[in-house]
Amino acid sequence: MAVQTVASTSNPTVDLGPAAALSCRECGHQVPLGPVFACEECFGPLEIAYDFSAYDTEELRKRIEAGPANIWRYAPLLPVPADVADKPNINPGWTKLVKADNLARELGVTGGLYVKDDSGNPTHSFKDRVVAQALEAARAFGFTTLSCSSTGNLAGAVGAAAARAGFRSCVFIPHDLEQGKVVMAAVYGGELVGIQGNYDDVNRFCSELIGDPAGEGWGFVNVNLRPYYAEGSKTLAYEICEQLGWRLPDQIVVPIASGSQLTKIDKGLQELIKLGLVEDKPYKIFGAQAEGCSPVSTAFKAGHDVVRPQKPNTIAKSLAIGNPADGPYVLDIARRTGGAVEDVTDEQVVDAIKLLARTEGIFAETAGGVTVGVTKKLIESGVLDPSLTTVVLNTGDGLKTLDAVAGTGLTATIRPTLDSFREAGLA
Amino acid sequence: MAVQTVASTSNPTVDLGPAAALSCRECGHQVPLGPVFACEECFGPLEIAYDFSAYDTEELRKRIEAGPANIWRYAPLLPVPADVADKPNINPGWTKLVKADNLARELGVTGGLYVKDDSGNPTHSFKDRVVAQALEAARAFGFTTLSCSSTGNLAGAVGAAAARAGFRSCVFIPHDLEQGKVVMAAVYGGELVGIQGNYDDVNRFCSELIGDPAGEGWGFVNVNLRPYYAEGSKTLAYEICEQLGWRLPDQIVVPIASGSQLTKIDKGLQELIKLGLVEDKPYKIFGAQAEGCSPVSTAFKAGHDVVRPQKPNTIAKSLAIGNPADGPYVLDIARRTGGAVEDVTDEQVVDAIKLLARTEGIFAETAGGVTVGVTKKLIESGVLDPSLTTVVLNTGDGLKTLDAVAGTGLTATIRPTLDSFREAGLA
Repeated sequence: MAVQTVASTSNPTVDLGPAAALSCRECGHQVPLGPVFACEECFGPLEIAYDFSAYDTEELRKRIEAGPANIWRYAPLLPVPADVADKPNINPGWTKLVKADNLARELGVTGGLYVKDDSGNPTHSFKDRVVAQALEAARAFGFTTLSCSSTGNLAGAVGAAAARAGFRSCVFIPHDLEQGKVVMAAVYGGELVGIQGNYDDVNRFCSELIGDPAGEGWGFVNVNLRPYYAEGSKTLAYEICEQLGWRLPDQIVVPIASGSQLTKIDKGLQELIKLGLVEDKPYKIFGAQAEGCSPVSTAFKAGHDVVRPQKPNTIAKSLAIGNPADGPYVLDIARRTGGAVEDVTDEQVVDAIKLLARTEGIFAETAGGVTVGVTKKLIESGVLDPSLTTVVLNTGDGLKTLDAVAGTGLTATIRPTLDSFREAGLA
Repeated sequence: MAVQTVASTSNPTVDLGPAAALSCRECGHQVPLGPVFACEECFGPLEIAYDFSAYDTEELRKRIEAGPANIWRYAPLLPVPADVADKPNINPGWTKLVKADNLARELGVTGGLYVKDDSGNPTHSFKDRVVAQALEAARAFGFTTLSCSSTGNLAGAVGAAAARAGFRSCVFIPHDLEQGKVVMAAVYGGELVGIQGNYDDVNRFCSELIGDPAGEGWGFVNVNLRPYYAEGSKTLAYEICEQLGWRLPDQIVVPIASGSQLTKIDKGLQELIKLGLVEDKPYKIFGAQAEGCSPVSTAFKAGHDVVRPQKPNTIAKSLAIGNPADGPYVLDIARRTGGAVEDVTDEQVVDAIKLLARTEGIFAETAGGVTVGVTKKLIESGVLDPSLTTVVLNTGDGLKTLDAVAGTGLTATIRPTLDSFREAGLA
């Protein structure tokens, strides 16, 4: 692979492996690795620029295959030091890629259908991948507090990772969050601060804190550590291809919240192609949203390049970002690869959660209902080709969104006798 | 390893790999492999007798290491056909063995402390291991319905495994179970039958059903498939040793419900020694109970060989078996290996759940609070040696027993301003 152009901006005190600099996604301006996230020239988002020039394809493949059963097998492709696996972290990843033959039959998929089931991560969502990356950046930059604003999965992932790595954690949430979610975030023993206000107020406050001396030493995983954090999603692409026997899938269905995950999966697939680890062939990326928060889907269908913000109103709360930062990039990728962006109703989300559980024994979060539901819809409308190898992402765990399927219950009630059993028609 | 004595009782139509027969644990009487669980001679429990005579140690080790990242890597040591990994199952196991250095520091363990974290299984408890085994036996015996009585983890594991393998499932629960648990069991789409009565009534009814023609074709995972089901726990022993680099731990702390898991872990360790896969050296097994259901611990401390049943009253509901079938065997093993059986109060269980979460980022079910709490207590009383390598089991997931830590909550509530932040002392 050709050396990426990296300006003489390297920061010699920071060892983040192959990460060479931060590069603006819009204007290409480069700055040294550091806890910054917006370009000083054009305010565009900063991304990691790597130097992969030293890698021999087959040596790299062997090194990966001999690595640990977690995301650190891909350390040579991530902004982490080479010895990352020896440091205390929650070590997510290498989750199951389930061959979903029962679901394929129901949906009429003949080309091979797979579910990448990220509920197997330590805190049972894909957020462990991105937080594990942010933690390594926080360590490299000498931060001592790991922080975020959250209403769900992210709070648990940050709390757990900070606990294990010996960081202080401080998670900000709206003060009136449901008690169950508070418990899940609080159990790891870090600071859990309720903000008197809504989620927008929480985020506004966090931005203020980052710019204030009071925020010194604080790594906000998805703000000042965002360029590192976001790279964690590349590991989904790596794992899917390696688990398919170093093959690209033909089609992949990804949920859209901020859109970052989808763009990084595309980045990961492109890297594997350039490094020669997979064949260079076309693939299509499909984005999935809930109808009650479908700004990207709406823009895609209207043929727009810009995404008009929406006020979210859906049970798929982990995807409910009304103004998705990476929305325009998602539109680019869906169009460039020949994919699409589609949305489903909350009722279809619930039906899809049950469909996946009934066919494959996988109990997904609402976000998994969104991807499975969108897959079904795209097959029915002829947009997704059922004769091609297709991977659907489940990024979270049904135990965290039990309310969504609260209507599910007993199929029969009987007395403890065989007569009653027979009367109920269960024999 | 010497050939185990196997009578000419083999069942030629059943291929369960190295499993050769069923053998009575009490009198040694052997019968062919089949869906039976009690000795026809003495009513003792039947166990699997294996023929491991053909194995070469180093070939076996290589075969295991090249196997899949789930329990089927140990197929040569389990009652399953050699091609088990190709059949639809939920493929549990190969969960993380977490080096718990923070917890070790808090407890004063210097010899290496590890948590075997079975919350990483598909339905987030160790039950997936035993159900996956029972499913293969059900397949071998031509059953079409997978069943159990349950009030929790087992229901989800059976529902998920049956869904994926294309079996009908029918799970029996008390009709007045909490709604959250009903949802977790119902989502997989099988029959979920509420019995008008308590858990004892449910079990009594299931026993009746097994003896009735109405129960034909039904595999009750922990009744008529129990000898196969129970073997799933051996995989915990195999994984711990392999993950330690094919070494035996010095000490291992195991929760006790029926006691089956502890006895099978011992069986698994003994097999590894006899097969030459680990060094033959002493190890100690410690059993852990909640004070509110501590029949085995009570018997151990009193020096008794028999276990007097108790009426359970503890938050550790997944361990609340008042009359544990394998209690006497647990006493034998704890005494033979130089271990012990201890119990902790519900308050200590909650403290231990929080301790594990705070130190290692692992959110355990109440059963995990029991093992961590007992480990702490045994170290403080000088029974467990902190200078030796110690493994503690966490067999379930905190998301399923949120009520236990419901008191955990916000550490501060502030207005969304930096002044309010500073006043709260969070800077």
